[in-house]
Amino acid sequence: MSFKKLSASIDKHKSNLCIGLDPSLEKIPEFLFEYEDAVLEFNSRIIEATRDAVCAYKLNTAFYEVLGEKGWSTFSETIARIPDDVYIIADCKRSDVGNSAKHYAQAFFDYFEVDAATVNPYMGHDSLEPFLNYKDKDIFALVVTSNEGAKDFQLQDVGGKKFYELVLEKISEWNKDGNIGAVVGATKVEQLAKVRSCYPQLPLLVPGIGAQGGSVEEVAEIANSAGAPVIINVSRDIIFAGYDDKFADKVREKAFYYNALLKK
Amino acid sequence: MSFKKLSASIDKHKSNLCIGLDPSLEKIPEFLFEYEDAVLEFNSRIIEATRDAVCAYKLNTAFYEVLGEKGWSTFSETIARIPDDVYIIADCKRSDVGNSAKHYAQAFFDYFEVDAATVNPYMGHDSLEPFLNYKDKDIFALVVTSNEGAKDFQLQDVGGKKFYELVLEKISEWNKDGNIGAVVGATKVEQLAKVRSCYPQLPLLVPGIGAQGGSVEEVAEIANSAGAPVIINVSRDIIFAGYDDKFADKVREKAFYYNALLKK
Repeated sequence: MSFKKLSASIDKHKSNLCIGLDPSLEKIPEFLFEYEDAVLEFNSRIIEATRDAVCAYKLNTAFYEVLGEKGWSTFSETIARIPDDVYIIADCKRSDVGNSAKHYAQAFFDYFEVDAATVNPYMGHDSLEPFLNYKDKDIFALVVTSNEGAKDFQLQDVGGKKFYELVLEKISEWNKDGNIGAVVGATKVEQLAKVRSCYPQLPLLVPGIGAQGGSVEEVAEIANSAGAPVIINVSRDIIFAGYDDKFADKVREKAFYYNALLKK
Repeated sequence: MSFKKLSASIDKHKSNLCIGLDPSLEKIPEFLFEYEDAVLEFNSRIIEATRDAVCAYKLNTAFYEVLGEKGWSTFSETIARIPDDVYIIADCKRSDVGNSAKHYAQAFFDYFEVDAATVNPYMGHDSLEPFLNYKDKDIFALVVTSNEGAKDFQLQDVGGKKFYELVLEKISEWNKDGNIGAVVGATKVEQLAKVRSCYPQLPLLVPGIGAQGGSVEEVAEIANSAGAPVIINVSRDIIFAGYDDKFADKVREKAFYYNALLKK
């Protein structure tokens, strides 16, 4: 059974909250730059402060890639500091032809050993297949993203339906081993509700509340409805809750605040 | 003017050939593993042997990412060994919301200092914008990819046209500074010809000849037609042309073979 670790983590920590470890250099507390690896110190303190408040951590690779080779060692060491029972998502949105996609899947699942990766479905089935072949790992395919640009393609009418609905049909067809979930942004409440009601057995990763402005109440209702696990991600609004040497206390407070909100 | 470095490189080297530096560990000559960084040695010898036969090198990030942090130092050092007058493409196919996309653009354009990056357009305009803001750098948006899975979404009918045609319309609209090109696979000859005839001023990156089976003749005709620059990428069929300590000679031979074919 796939998404098993995720379900166990949600149950154990009584939380659908995922914290996005997206450490923009210009926003992390200044005193941390006294440490050899400020980003790792930042992430470690957040993990230490919130490990009992979350079901998952999500690392967006953009924030590590921008740091060059050092960023990838920070990425790897951050993963090593996440407790074993918490689900780890590499938010990498990768997409490529089969041979290259196989190398991406190896990178995230074998080398970095994360539990799940986000993927961009635009290149079709054989671009996802190498990921799907890891039957004990999960992927979340981009369906409706939280940004303004979602309207450009995902929300376009394509012969009687929206393009994202075609993506949903296809990924459901490909989901032989139950290891595909979908990314649906919290800022697209109408589509989120529709996806949940049409595909209640599809696990969802929902980014976009907090700094991106998605509605917590409506997302909470969906997260608590019957069906596959729903993960709600918050990044900036939690991780940048404080800037002094007590920032981790504020981060913990904010994490519990969101966790409570999401239970209502 | 964008794509200026590319045009200059095509003119100077009299070549539309791009070599894909995609060093699968299991395929690079065994004797290279005596070196501290076998992949860098492999890439360096290929660059040395082919620098006068190509207009560009394309590095697919999957093959570096799979090597962890070391892979990114190899990526960076490979770029440093490419002559200044040869165009460098990071084939990363990135896509993300604005804030994350900004970090990807910084990674490739500021940190690694490549000339161009490939991007996946599925997330719409604001996911490409941070790249487009670098007016002296270029992007190639995935339009029709060379893999089988292109049929799943890109070639779908969407209200009287194909989905990839909608992508073409949009990227043309967004191309205010002339720094967007398109990826169109050589295995999709019909679409490639159509794109070239409808959008002759759109630079093209054409992967898929060689190991992926695209037709060299038809692609050559398009590359030599009037219009914006066309880059034709070959990876496996050139870089894995030999396996002994003289492999670079075979690589050079193969590069000139393709370069000649593409001129016909």
